[in-house]
Amino acid sequence: MFPKTNCLVAQSGGPTVAINASLAGVIEEALKCPKIDTIYGALNGILGVLEEKLINLSDTFSDDPEALSLLKTTPSMYLGSCRYKLSSVTEKDSDYLEIFKIFQKFNIKYFFYIGGNDSMDTVSKLSKYAKKINFDIQVIGIPKTIDNDLMHIDHTPGYGSAAKYIASSILEIAHDTYIYDLQTVTIVEIMGRNAGWLTAASALARNKYNTAPHLIYLPETPFSTQQFIKDVEKELSHRKQVIVAVSEGIKDSIGEYISAKSGQVDQFGHVMLSGTGKYLENLVKETLACKVRSIELNVLQRCATHISSLTDIEEACTLGKTSVSLALDGVTGEMVVLTRDSNSPYSVSYSSISIDEVANKEKLVPMNWITDGKNDITNEFMEYMMPLIHGEPTLLYKNGIPVYLPVDHLLNN
Amino acid sequence: MFPKTNCLVAQSGGPTVAINASLAGVIEEALKCPKIDTIYGALNGILGVLEEKLINLSDTFSDDPEALSLLKTTPSMYLGSCRYKLSSVTEKDSDYLEIFKIFQKFNIKYFFYIGGNDSMDTVSKLSKYAKKINFDIQVIGIPKTIDNDLMHIDHTPGYGSAAKYIASSILEIAHDTYIYDLQTVTIVEIMGRNAGWLTAASALARNKYNTAPHLIYLPETPFSTQQFIKDVEKELSHRKQVIVAVSEGIKDSIGEYISAKSGQVDQFGHVMLSGTGKYLENLVKETLACKVRSIELNVLQRCATHISSLTDIEEACTLGKTSVSLALDGVTGEMVVLTRDSNSPYSVSYSSISIDEVANKEKLVPMNWITDGKNDITNEFMEYMMPLIHGEPTLLYKNGIPVYLPVDHLLNN
Repeated sequence: MFPKTNCLVAQSGGPTVAINASLAGVIEEALKCPKIDTIYGALNGILGVLEEKLINLSDTFSDDPEALSLLKTTPSMYLGSCRYKLSSVTEKDSDYLEIFKIFQKFNIKYFFYIGGNDSMDTVSKLSKYAKKINFDIQVIGIPKTIDNDLMHIDHTPGYGSAAKYIASSILEIAHDTYIYDLQTVTIVEIMGRNAGWLTAASALARNKYNTAPHLIYLPETPFSTQQFIKDVEKELSHRKQVIVAVSEGIKDSIGEYISAKSGQVDQFGHVMLSGTGKYLENLVKETLACKVRSIELNVLQRCATHISSLTDIEEACTLGKTSVSLALDGVTGEMVVLTRDSNSPYSVSYSSISIDEVANKEKLVPMNWITDGKNDITNEFMEYMMPLIHGEPTLLYKNGIPVYLPVDHLLNN
Repeated sequence: MFPKTNCLVAQSGGPTVAINASLAGVIEEALKCPKIDTIYGALNGILGVLEEKLINLSDTFSDDPEALSLLKTTPSMYLGSCRYKLSSVTEKDSDYLEIFKIFQKFNIKYFFYIGGNDSMDTVSKLSKYAKKINFDIQVIGIPKTIDNDLMHIDHTPGYGSAAKYIASSILEIAHDTYIYDLQTVTIVEIMGRNAGWLTAASALARNKYNTAPHLIYLPETPFSTQQFIKDVEKELSHRKQVIVAVSEGIKDSIGEYISAKSGQVDQFGHVMLSGTGKYLENLVKETLACKVRSIELNVLQRCATHISSLTDIEEACTLGKTSVSLALDGVTGEMVVLTRDSNSPYSVSYSSISIDEVANKEKLVPMNWITDGKNDITNEFMEYMMPLIHGEPTLLYKNGIPVYLPVDHLLNN
């Protein structure tokens, strides 16, 4: 007979459509494990631990496999999120004292934190503090971010689904654009402040008849508005409808965001930040005589489960399960990762890596995956992305709307 | 043996995800009909007739049932579109002479025009001209518009799919919004310059746990920015995350578009029109101390076949088929319509109506379907919309992206 101990799981950072699949993986594996008695979830990330907002996930899911299955395809974060950075323990240790008091009170021996690079900083700090005070707990990070900017992992859960949404939407926008016998420029603004992984995914929309997007601009290379206008003019010289995919985070040669340059003034006379797409729309309007439209894909690229990647959902779930196995094996202060073993047929394997190799670091698109003209991506990049958007999860629909797991507990807390 | 005659079909106005299903219905029915020899399609609407840009649809589809099936779930317009209004024949008859020369040349006895109220004006004019010159042709209008603003039809093809996209997206945005333990206001701008049918569809996102959108503003009633701020404040007094659905076309009490009021100035010092959502975002930011975001659903609400309504696609197809049967029965100068016979179980029947009852007219949301507070819709309106978004067509995917029918012919014309 094992001594009964409990585990705790929380989610942090921005939403993805795969982060709940990782949570479901943790729950599914922990439910099977005789060493773990109760699975707790903290609401709103580490803040929920500090404020003792814990819910009993064993009660919710142990007798309800349908709910657990539904969790895998529910967008955003079932446990809610936070953007809270722990101070270093030398600056202020009150948070640590409070968190470990809760760990003690609930007999938490395993803590799983699902998040991006900021959240991995929390995993790093808590695992180090536990060692320092000799507290018996395994702290494991589970990666997620649509931005795909974590180091030492082939790609991050959430990225494949966002990429699929972006590529499918670009293809549909192309069909929408091709119908008029007019010169038009359509600019699609895609998320990514520093890394261009998401914007690059627009290229997956290309097929035998669709060559859009015709221009792709990532934040990894300096953006020149003059060169941009030249590029658009060149495209317009041999096709009627030009579609441009652009990262929200493109910057000029001195590193200033293009979106910050518009200097728009609102009705109160205050300078406003417009979107990058809107800025470029106005620029094309002023410079070239043709119809222009900008489209901001906005938050749907991170929450549109209705067009998500089965590969992404399954990998996110397996990473959750793997984290439980590793924690039971005594691993702590690590993040679970996946490595691509083969591209064709696509296969990955799962392991873990020291959290300090990941926390607070950022993986950008390699320069040799961007074409010399700085307005497109290479075939190698295409091959990297293609397997990540494969497969469609089966979604339930009720009255014509996708069915997701209710999140009342977030609304009433 | 019937004398062999030909038919012509074209599409006009803005795209929907169901307009190709109507085209497929026309083709499917006309292929079966011994009276019709060749089915021609004009590219870019009536302009394609004027410029003799006709393609042979019998060749493309008669031996390829898979292509015909794929056409039903291909977004936007396979034949392209135009925004071209025929002059009245008394002002300028050259267009009429040209069009009927083409009808004569290709032995066109049936002309089907799929479009919204402007396109129905073309149907009206051509059918009248044919009678005037005693030209033997049946001219039939087939309705489509995401705006649902055509008279004498229960609802328009294209509306149900757009409504489904809007409602599903609002639900996903709600999941995205609920995760932070913060006061936030999210404003979703939805298409509709004069009619609020699309914005009202946001209410279909509501379910047992999701009460969003919490406020809905349609263009049918005057919009007061002061009342809007009061409404938002009231919502914020009892919930953390407030989600607002607003028509792009809301106007103040003197009929001026709210989007025109922002008076933003671009980098060249020119006044710009921002979106309605962006205007309200800035207003809330200046007035209330909370996080605000605006989201413009933009063209995806009219082209996102990846989440379309099977009911909508099937009805659009049946309207196409019906138009062929009616034309063969000698009907001309009419638009095919559907009438709701029962709401539960939902059933409709198909007939036609004189084109002059429809052309250049606009159906707004009835005032008694808007609540007294002018910030929500009634249950009666909900019951009207609910059956229209039912069912999901089976889409093919290849390499993770929906497969649509190629439109090379639009790109190379």
